[in-house]
Amino acid sequence: MAEPTGREFFTTRTVAEALAGFRPRRRTASETVPLGDALRRVPGEPVIAPHPLPGFARSTVDGYAVRAADTYGVSEGLPGYLTLAGAVLMGTEPTTAVTSGTAVVMPTGGALPPGADAVVMIEYTAETMPGTIEVVRPVAPGEGVVRADEDAKPGDAIIGGGRPLRPQDLGMLAAAGVTSVTVRKKPVVTIFSTGDEVVPADTAELKPGQVRDATATALAALTADAGGEPVYGGIVPDDPGALEKALRDVLPASDVLVISAGSSVGVRDETATAVARLGEPGIWCHGLAIKPGKPTLLADCAGVPVIGLPGNPRSALVVFRLIGMPVIRMVGGCEAAPPQPSTRARLSRDLASAAGRLDVVQVTVGEDGMATPVFGLSALLSVLTAADGYIVIPDDATGLAAGSEVDVILYA
Amino acid sequence: MAEPTGREFFTTRTVAEALAGFRPRRRTASETVPLGDALRRVPGEPVIAPHPLPGFARSTVDGYAVRAADTYGVSEGLPGYLTLAGAVLMGTEPTTAVTSGTAVVMPTGGALPPGADAVVMIEYTAETMPGTIEVVRPVAPGEGVVRADEDAKPGDAIIGGGRPLRPQDLGMLAAAGVTSVTVRKKPVVTIFSTGDEVVPADTAELKPGQVRDATATALAALTADAGGEPVYGGIVPDDPGALEKALRDVLPASDVLVISAGSSVGVRDETATAVARLGEPGIWCHGLAIKPGKPTLLADCAGVPVIGLPGNPRSALVVFRLIGMPVIRMVGGCEAAPPQPSTRARLSRDLASAAGRLDVVQVTVGEDGMATPVFGLSALLSVLTAADGYIVIPDDATGLAAGSEVDVILYA
Repeated sequence: MAEPTGREFFTTRTVAEALAGFRPRRRTASETVPLGDALRRVPGEPVIAPHPLPGFARSTVDGYAVRAADTYGVSEGLPGYLTLAGAVLMGTEPTTAVTSGTAVVMPTGGALPPGADAVVMIEYTAETMPGTIEVVRPVAPGEGVVRADEDAKPGDAIIGGGRPLRPQDLGMLAAAGVTSVTVRKKPVVTIFSTGDEVVPADTAELKPGQVRDATATALAALTADAGGEPVYGGIVPDDPGALEKALRDVLPASDVLVISAGSSVGVRDETATAVARLGEPGIWCHGLAIKPGKPTLLADCAGVPVIGLPGNPRSALVVFRLIGMPVIRMVGGCEAAPPQPSTRARLSRDLASAAGRLDVVQVTVGEDGMATPVFGLSALLSVLTAADGYIVIPDDATGLAAGSEVDVILYA
Repeated sequence: MAEPTGREFFTTRTVAEALAGFRPRRRTASETVPLGDALRRVPGEPVIAPHPLPGFARSTVDGYAVRAADTYGVSEGLPGYLTLAGAVLMGTEPTTAVTSGTAVVMPTGGALPPGADAVVMIEYTAETMPGTIEVVRPVAPGEGVVRADEDAKPGDAIIGGGRPLRPQDLGMLAAAGVTSVTVRKKPVVTIFSTGDEVVPADTAELKPGQVRDATATALAALTADAGGEPVYGGIVPDDPGALEKALRDVLPASDVLVISAGSSVGVRDETATAVARLGEPGIWCHGLAIKPGKPTLLADCAGVPVIGLPGNPRSALVVFRLIGMPVIRMVGGCEAAPPQPSTRARLSRDLASAAGRLDVVQVTVGEDGMATPVFGLSALLSVLTAADGYIVIPDDATGLAAGSEVDVILYA
């Protein structure tokens, strides 16, 4: 992270600058989890194959294990004949070796017997007499066989580090006999809400002027999606001293701090004051060139990334998706952004945008491939729940014309 | 599901036929879960707003609550003057009403006082004398205000049914005071492995000819991704009686049965025999026009969808992703396929394909936008772990030329 100076206290940044420059060095420590709990967890280091996989040469077909040389030159017109010397049983070590002029019955997946170097598919054979098979097509050495180390050689990185484990990765680890994996701990993301009007989400009856803490609930879910461990810090009243104390108390146990700040200018200033006192180097930017989401604060307090979000729920969630989730992934050891669902669509109407600012517009996508903007105030969550996804109008654009082809990032 | 007859025991279907025709009617029952556990869970029915949201008219800006009519005609040159009658405090019921010629200090998010119908932004005002403000821009009624029912009216469906809950949906539910949600139970997906060569994944030392059960581990992870609850049925030896008994034992407690079948023809036939005896109407297809994955069996046994997968791990996972995951989602109440990450890329080389068969080709995607096929035997899991995603060559194509633009479905 670049060293901020006092002058940057009110610095406004573009989203691109934030993504490029607000990159915490912090990484969580490691822990070892059972393989069954490792889906989407992020190994810090590659996992190395302890031994060859599958570990023995296996047949890939039903047929007969042979010496390939015994089949050279055979054809439908001039079959070769081999004496059946035995059969391989699944899951057992072959007991009968293949010698010149003999063959052994071979099920798919069975271990290749000693002396054999290929498997003839049953389709190209016939048992013409008991104990003898006819072979009508030649095989090359290695045909019908997976080598003992064809899936992995000892020392191969069977799984890379820095990327969430996928279902097939768990399968590969299971094949290699790996029963637990060393992964980065989930970043602990402490989420605070501020505002004298905010009451806990489980408040049954609201008094006039009160609103339930909806943002924290949604932020916790986005945190989980980014591989983090959300922790509710609670609701802090509009008082910079109380906020500073609350933040300071959880700082040592947090990998990322998120403050869903009040909406009014005064409360936002109080948040900035509290964050600025929390630790060095302090505030990195205060104001982001994005709509909605301008009143965003980014800071690094004693090595903990701190994200102050706008008070409007929709703005907060838009900014957290664009800035907060990448920060959590980075702290959790992800080295690249994950692929996200998207679709090409045509814009249903003109959209205006100011140059120098990123616009995030919520849209629905119809079966006709039209992206229709969902409009509404930043305070409205219903705009987000009605949307199928969003489009981004870049900083340098002054709008998009109806009919433009747009990339819609889809909510999964 | 169409009624199968005995003749269909060996029927081969296309993937499109399977997706269109193998649609279980089964749906899981409902259960109520706390909101904090409801991410990606699927409500069977829409959730209705119990009361208006936000519940009171709120200011969207910092400024002054006014009667809009008092501002008509004002301008920079000819400001209007209003007497300050008080201030709204966040989270409390306004005590001072706005009357003609007066204004009340209004923080963003505060409750609009009685008598006011608009909020003038502070930017368009000045407190020229203590107790008096100057207003230089007129406001229309409703300006600077979110209506009491603008986010939701009582009786509105704030969340639709049949779709996994997203982070913003949880936020909306929290705002409405919903603390628990009625969702469909996760489909219980019992996963069996067959084959005398297969040993549990936690087997430390393999005997010659043995392989660890990698497929079940990966299938469990894919099941979880599809919203199901994986249950390991265990490893069943190559014996149709034992398999039938094992399947019959778990049938009543399963919403979906998955059998990772042995690879050899004999074992596959035994699996079909056991499944055919399990319940009516029985086998729907035996053989799928897909590569890899041809030896796939689909059945409906007494209302439980049964999926018999090929023995090769890669084939099994390809088929499960294309056929098994949609079945689990359907049983779990999802009414539409979720969006999946994808990218456009150019094919690095020619790919051959047989008409009448769907080909699934694993690829890596380079930074240059080239999709490079990862080749290897169906038995190799390393082909899947090396891949970034896959492309589908449709039934009617006989291949794709190098340089073709392709859609790559990305593994997340």
